[in-house]
Amino acid sequence: MSLDRAVSLRDLEPLAEAVLDPAAFAYIASGAGDEHTLRDNEAAFARRSLRPRVLVDVTAVDPATSVLGTRVPMPVGVAPTAQHGLAHPGAEAETARGAGQVGALFCLSTLSSLALEEVAAAVDGPAWFQLYTHTDPAVTDDVIERAVSAGFGALVLTVDLPVVGQRDREVRGGYVWPTEPGRFGTFARYGDGAGAGLHRSQDTWAGLARIRERSAPLPLVVKGVLTGEDAALAVEHGAAAVWVSNHGGRQLDRTPASLDVLEEVVDAVDGRAEVYLDSGVRRGTDVLAALALGARCVFVGRPVLYGLALEGASGVARVLGMLQRELVTAMTLLGTPTVADVTRAHLA
Amino acid sequence: MSLDRAVSLRDLEPLAEAVLDPAAFAYIASGAGDEHTLRDNEAAFARRSLRPRVLVDVTAVDPATSVLGTRVPMPVGVAPTAQHGLAHPGAEAETARGAGQVGALFCLSTLSSLALEEVAAAVDGPAWFQLYTHTDPAVTDDVIERAVSAGFGALVLTVDLPVVGQRDREVRGGYVWPTEPGRFGTFARYGDGAGAGLHRSQDTWAGLARIRERSAPLPLVVKGVLTGEDAALAVEHGAAAVWVSNHGGRQLDRTPASLDVLEEVVDAVDGRAEVYLDSGVRRGTDVLAALALGARCVFVGRPVLYGLALEGASGVARVLGMLQRELVTAMTLLGTPTVADVTRAHLA
Amino acid sequence: MSLDRAVSLRDLEPLAEAVLDPAAFAYIASGAGDEHTLRDNEAAFARRSLRPRVLVDVTAVDPATSVLGTRVPMPVGVAPTAQHGLAHPGAEAETARGAGQVGALFCLSTLSSLALEEVAAAVDGPAWFQLYTHTDPAVTDDVIERAVSAGFGALVLTVDLPVVGQRDREVRGGYVWPTEPGRFGTFARYGDGAGAGLHRSQDTWAGLARIRERSAPLPLVVKGVLTGEDAALAVEHGAAAVWVSNHGGRQLDRTPASLDVLEEVVDAVDGRAEVYLDSGVRRGTDVLAALALGARCVFVGRPVLYGLALEGASGVARVLGMLQRELVTAMTLLGTPTVADVTRAHLA
Amino acid sequence: MSLDRAVSLRDLEPLAEAVLDPAAFAYIASGAGDEHTLRDNEAAFARRSLRPRVLVDVTAVDPATSVLGTRVPMPVGVAPTAQHGLAHPGAEAETARGAGQVGALFCLSTLSSLALEEVAAAVDGPAWFQLYTHTDPAVTDDVIERAVSAGFGALVLTVDLPVVGQRDREVRGGYVWPTEPGRFGTFARYGDGAGAGLHRSQDTWAGLARIRERSAPLPLVVKGVLTGEDAALAVEHGAAAVWVSNHGGRQLDRTPASLDVLEEVVDAVDGRAEVYLDSGVRRGTDVLAALALGARCVFVGRPVLYGLALEGASGVARVLGMLQRELVTAMTLLGTPTVADVTRAHLA
Repeated sequence: MSLDRAVSLRDLEPLAEAVLDPAAFAYIASGAGDEHTLRDNEAAFARRSLRPRVLVDVTAVDPATSVLGTRVPMPVGVAPTAQHGLAHPGAEAETARGAGQVGALFCLSTLSSLALEEVAAAVDGPAWFQLYTHTDPAVTDDVIERAVSAGFGALVLTVDLPVVGQRDREVRGGYVWPTEPGRFGTFARYGDGAGAGLHRSQDTWAGLARIRERSAPLPLVVKGVLTGEDAALAVEHGAAAVWVSNHGGRQLDRTPASLDVLEEVVDAVDGRAEVYLDSGVRRGTDVLAALALGARCVFVGRPVLYGLALEGASGVARVLGMLQRELVTAMTLLGTPTVADVTRAHLA
Repeated sequence: MSLDRAVSLRDLEPLAEAVLDPAAFAYIASGAGDEHTLRDNEAAFARRSLRPRVLVDVTAVDPATSVLGTRVPMPVGVAPTAQHGLAHPGAEAETARGAGQVGALFCLSTLSSLALEEVAAAVDGPAWFQLYTHTDPAVTDDVIERAVSAGFGALVLTVDLPVVGQRDREVRGGYVWPTEPGRFGTFARYGDGAGAGLHRSQDTWAGLARIRERSAPLPLVVKGVLTGEDAALAVEHGAAAVWVSNHGGRQLDRTPASLDVLEEVVDAVDGRAEVYLDSGVRRGTDVLAALALGARCVFVGRPVLYGLALEGASGVARVLGMLQRELVTAMTLLGTPTVADVTRAHLA
Repeated sequence: MSLDRAVSLRDLEPLAEAVLDPAAFAYIASGAGDEHTLRDNEAAFARRSLRPRVLVDVTAVDPATSVLGTRVPMPVGVAPTAQHGLAHPGAEAETARGAGQVGALFCLSTLSSLALEEVAAAVDGPAWFQLYTHTDPAVTDDVIERAVSAGFGALVLTVDLPVVGQRDREVRGGYVWPTEPGRFGTFARYGDGAGAGLHRSQDTWAGLARIRERSAPLPLVVKGVLTGEDAALAVEHGAAAVWVSNHGGRQLDRTPASLDVLEEVVDAVDGRAEVYLDSGVRRGTDVLAALALGARCVFVGRPVLYGLALEGASGVARVLGMLQRELVTAMTLLGTPTVADVTRAHLA
Repeated sequence: MSLDRAVSLRDLEPLAEAVLDPAAFAYIASGAGDEHTLRDNEAAFARRSLRPRVLVDVTAVDPATSVLGTRVPMPVGVAPTAQHGLAHPGAEAETARGAGQVGALFCLSTLSSLALEEVAAAVDGPAWFQLYTHTDPAVTDDVIERAVSAGFGALVLTVDLPVVGQRDREVRGGYVWPTEPGRFGTFARYGDGAGAGLHRSQDTWAGLARIRERSAPLPLVVKGVLTGEDAALAVEHGAAAVWVSNHGGRQLDRTPASLDVLEEVVDAVDGRAEVYLDSGVRRGTDVLAALALGARCVFVGRPVLYGLALEGASGVARVLGMLQRELVTAMTLLGTPTVADVTRAHLA
């Protein structure tokens, strides 16, 4: 089984399902509740229409951009997702190598199978660290310090998981959240089951100051914002970027699609920070729709895991390359040779 | 067969269908006419989007509230539904015990299989009595007096059943409305078939005064309101609460979904009475949508009957517990630690 | 095969298909083109919501009304449809007898299998005559004179069939328009194939004057109007009633559903004439939606033919009775004891 | 296999699929990406409603019109499509003969299987030449000169194909873009593979001047416009007509349906040029919707290729004739005896 039969990212899920353990597939693929938001994330892109401009010189189309000052080959990064060991024995190190092959921004999850230092060693390109706080603040502080030391370029605080969402399909699929020590590599050193301390319900705006202080000089990204109000608060609390996400439809079912709140967030941020988006990006045209609404970069989660499951690092690189080729074609046809050329006027 | 295979309330109907007599299932599950309203009741919730707020302290989430001054553990009660004997030999007493296990508000139907006194004896928590008037006013008066004596905490007058709706699926399923004496326990003492005297077309606003007088000191709830006009009339005629309902889609097909008229009713009531809602509530997020639009409490009907059919009292308790757990998770993810925190701004 | 298995008018089509000749069924059931309008006629009713008012005295609900001064037991009549001989050997006489059993208004088509005089002899209730003009004005004049003599109470001029619509399903089903003399009873006396002279493209507003003059003293109804402009013209040319219809979706595909233009027509007529509607009426609630938008009466076509095919006159009566019972139930539940009580405010 | 079983253009695709090479069928039938735009092109017509006017004299209905001063029997032409040799050995010459049989406007693609002169010899009616520029300007100039010499009546510059769209279905179907010399007849003389030089990303508004100059005295049509902005630019750069098209959904997926931007283009052109439309036209009523929104002519692509595949020239003529008959019926029923009678008021 390989990616050879995949013509687009749409093809990845069934191919990956065939090679993944059923419980692992249920964990990766599922959304919360009725999976309304999961479906709507993709449907939201289909509700947007692109307005192509013709007779623009598109002899040189370049999707490169920068995020937080770092040059990236395209406005598409790898979203932080947990437990890559479920998809491939090489886990996050393999994913990092794949992203590195195409130079794409890689964001490592706190809940990685490997310890963050092991992954950092495999990184060959821009990389950020996603943080879940721990019920023990000392652990949180230590994880932040290690991420800074390991050379990650930004700290991405996820704020939409005070508790884990109710994922019915996960339950039906027999997935059980791991409790054995060592299943989350970064937490292995803190003793038994510490990594399973997922309750983050104590996170507040006030607590953000402490995290910013500990993670300095790294820029702070706040991930999981779905309202203009919270986007403004994030900026006021010093976020360098606001990341619009509903966690791939895995947390609160019935939230709007990420794309549908992007404009509200962009308006609230009002140029004071960068804005990113994940949840539902599957096509080059999806990337353009998000850029047109004001996102600086988008992130993909499940497709990367599917590429990883099917072919390891090269699968990750192929998935990202597929999306990049689609993006270049779409930019050519939209009449926008650079990402800076994509404007609100390119959306109907 | 049990509830073990039910991950959410969505799973209950097929499980219950397998254990219920087909005609009884048709009676319980069916809606009127084309079942447009039946389907729309659930679809209306899916049309609403929740706006989760992040970095709110949700270390202590509590869904408790009060209805008409009575403390309840959650803003979800058991809607009055007829003939629980079709689902379980223990009938409404079993349901009342199940509700009592989780402390949920239980509303008994006039058309119960057991006599209201038999059910009252099993009640272990807040309980209300739902009234259908009888063509013989003396019977109505007596029933009211018995309900007051039995200790029910409020009288809920159902106003959307001047005649029984046309339920095609019921006819196809072979369900026949019972006419033998004793099938409706509360009416057994009034002689043959009296309980089958379902014509209530004589109920009017003017008649409400008499009912209020007879049922004093119990607060009066008017159930089955779908317009702002009638909500205002109910308040003006002394209702302590207005209950938005289309009878689970069983009366007039093509009415709006209950949720879709909730805001109109809340506006018309304008704080002068409490507002409740039933019809289509299946998820914790549904409860939040109704609260956000101004409901103080919602009620569930069919899911409770399915739990009753599958496991008796413990099935009822499990169904209510499932919904309560969903509600707590949803409140945590919405950033609303108490029901009072849920506002109109939490809906898109 | 009979109507015994029909719980509502929705059940009639498959039952009738089983007893009808396939080509005849294709002729009766088909719509024009993609059948977009055919489907939309019914879908339009499902897009409307009824607002039931409660605690109205509905001890006596009466659907009776009058059309053009004639009392009818309900605001539902039999629409003119061609060639009842395809459905039953008794043809239109049988249909007229069925309508008579419930006292419903019966409208006879020019293209009847039997001669209009034969049908008139079977009529036992209010009856109107629908006119298609003939390319030979002398034939038109004679037909009008015969209809007046036979005692029909109004002349209904159909204006939406200058040519027969393109009905793909009819072609696929092998239906061939009859050309033998005598297949259209009313035209038999005019010689070979005269009845097949269906081109009416010469009809104009100017020509209406001649028809009115010839048909006096009968009131003139203009049937097949879908715009406010034409409704106003019909009134200005002396129409006593305007009949909103897209010919059951059989003429121009992609017209709006009849219900969707009713309000526009009612506004244009502005009380100067009665307004009727056909196309898509299948439920008692459909009738109420049309009344709420200003129709005085609605007409049903295919369901009557299906009743005729299944059981002859008694089938026609049962279909009409089924709709009448639904209507009474719906009026009771809507809180409108008479048709005059149904207002625009009963629609959301 | 023939067209005998085709009742409407809707029937052509499956019939043609049965006779075409699978890869060729994939090439012809496919759209870009998720084929969202492909589907939406047809769906857009179904979202429009026609408002038929009655009692208009329609004894003589004539769909004839003129385009750029040339009289055509109907406002429906043959869109330029590549490689007719995939569908029939007679290729574009056969198509031209078929169009000639009904006098329809035929537009030849640059990427024809036969050399343009071979096709010109078969033309028997109005014909235009569609131009793709070549990376070698000398080749472009020569092709233009040959088209002028061969007697084509207008030059249609396609501007929506700077690169070929990403057509997933084409890839799945095994279609491979030809690279052997001679597969594109017009390019055969320029040496190996020249015809495969499809990169036209260098086309700009500035370059249009050169093309206009070289193609004078032929009028220039700009094809592939989807925005009012570009329509205005086309007019300002001397276009005699603006052709609204999304290339049959084959280029950028997620553009609006052609019909949905027609009004915007018509408004921007503001009478300064003619406006045409292709993409999704399958019904006579579709033609009327486009005319009502301001198109002077529409073009059909795939249906013509399917007719060609099924029956050669006569198949092409039958497909066009089928559409013309539908159009005449639709004009009759709309109450618009000439195309000039069709106005914006005929759309709801």
